[in-house]
Amino acid sequence: MGAVKTKRMPRAVREQQMLDAAVRIFGQRGYMAASMDEIAELAGVSKPLVYLYLNSKEDLFIACIRREATALTEAVRAGVRPGLPADRQLWDGLQAFFAHTAEHPDGWSVLHLQARTHGEPFAAEVAAMRAEIVAFVTRLVAVAARAAHRDPDLPEGEVAGLAEALVGAAESLAAWANVTPGVTARQAAATLMNFAWSGLGNLLSGHVWTPPA
Amino acid sequence: MGAVKTKRMPRAVREQQMLDAAVRIFGQRGYMAASMDEIAELAGVSKPLVYLYLNSKEDLFIACIRREATALTEAVRAGVRPGLPADRQLWDGLQAFFAHTAEHPDGWSVLHLQARTHGEPFAAEVAAMRAEIVAFVTRLVAVAARAAHRDPDLPEGEVAGLAEALVGAAESLAAWANVTPGVTARQAAATLMNFAWSGLGNLLSGHVWTPPA
Repeated sequence: MGAVKTKRMPRAVREQQMLDAAVRIFGQRGYMAASMDEIAELAGVSKPLVYLYLNSKEDLFIACIRREATALTEAVRAGVRPGLPADRQLWDGLQAFFAHTAEHPDGWSVLHLQARTHGEPFAAEVAAMRAEIVAFVTRLVAVAARAAHRDPDLPEGEVAGLAEALVGAAESLAAWANVTPGVTARQAAATLMNFAWSGLGNLLSGHVWTPPA
Repeated sequence: MGAVKTKRMPRAVREQQMLDAAVRIFGQRGYMAASMDEIAELAGVSKPLVYLYLNSKEDLFIACIRREATALTEAVRAGVRPGLPADRQLWDGLQAFFAHTAEHPDGWSVLHLQARTHGEPFAAEVAAMRAEIVAFVTRLVAVAARAAHRDPDLPEGEVAGLAEALVGAAESLAAWANVTPGVTARQAAATLMNFAWSGLGNLLSGHVWTPPA
């Protein structure tokens, strides 16, 4: 009976179970130490089935990177509502980012740590996702700058630099928050919002940015 | 005569020449593609001498990471004079950081890209340097916060988070500046200083931080 049930489960569902297991094992053990036996066991399938569906350890890892990258990018996009004030859009985007990375620590480890520390072609996959997020943040800052000035004071190159700085800060902080006990996603988002929006100068003189109620 | 000169050159000098060549080749070709033949040729020595002095490609790469990490950390420390106002210390530190990474693009590529994308033990070497820089920035922000408030409003965890954000932003921006034509070290430092000190909110409303003359 069990075997019949197994066969009837659609391939797409089975694949997602394998990817769930793989993200967990890759994220926790690292790419090199992760074993296909352990992934198959956690997914509740045979190892040959994993190879049949996902071809190789490398292809399985790339499938993990793509799924996690898409999920993270979509979570950030879904969190931001265009038309709201710039600080609100940024706050919503940061909250979505930190909530997602906190809820999916293994996925974030795969993207930020594992995929970047095992060479090509993995690093290129993450670089593509990162470029998309930087472009998204660049547009957000550019739109905000245009809204603030009729003749924007911030040249295009400066806006691109600010977006790079913001994305780098978010990546660094998410990695830190996930390994630091007691730091919630909301706190991490508020720290970066204060840093990015109010600046250290204002923070140090006691002028903090206050999140919406 | 040439051979005699070669023999008389002290080992330490020869080693530095080998490391100079290795940083350039590792930085430009990447760890995997870098060839020991090419490194020896660029250093003007025989390949067996490179192996005699530095043992293996892996050990040579680790020696490169250590040398470049020490040089970068020392450059940032040397740029900052304690006792100056916090924004001046931060500006000096950022200028030293971006000037060093711009002057040593291959060294920065080794630290930021190559060492982190080829697994352990390389990633651990860079993580140690990064932890030292984060600790340095954390102390800087903590001292500034104490100077600004008699009863500091910024709890310790918040200061640590701000330091992580700042270091992540600097890393991201240095990588971007080194591949973006026309972005000088001073511009990159000013972009991050504005971002970090004044905050996006002030930037967007036209309040920029002005570097000292």
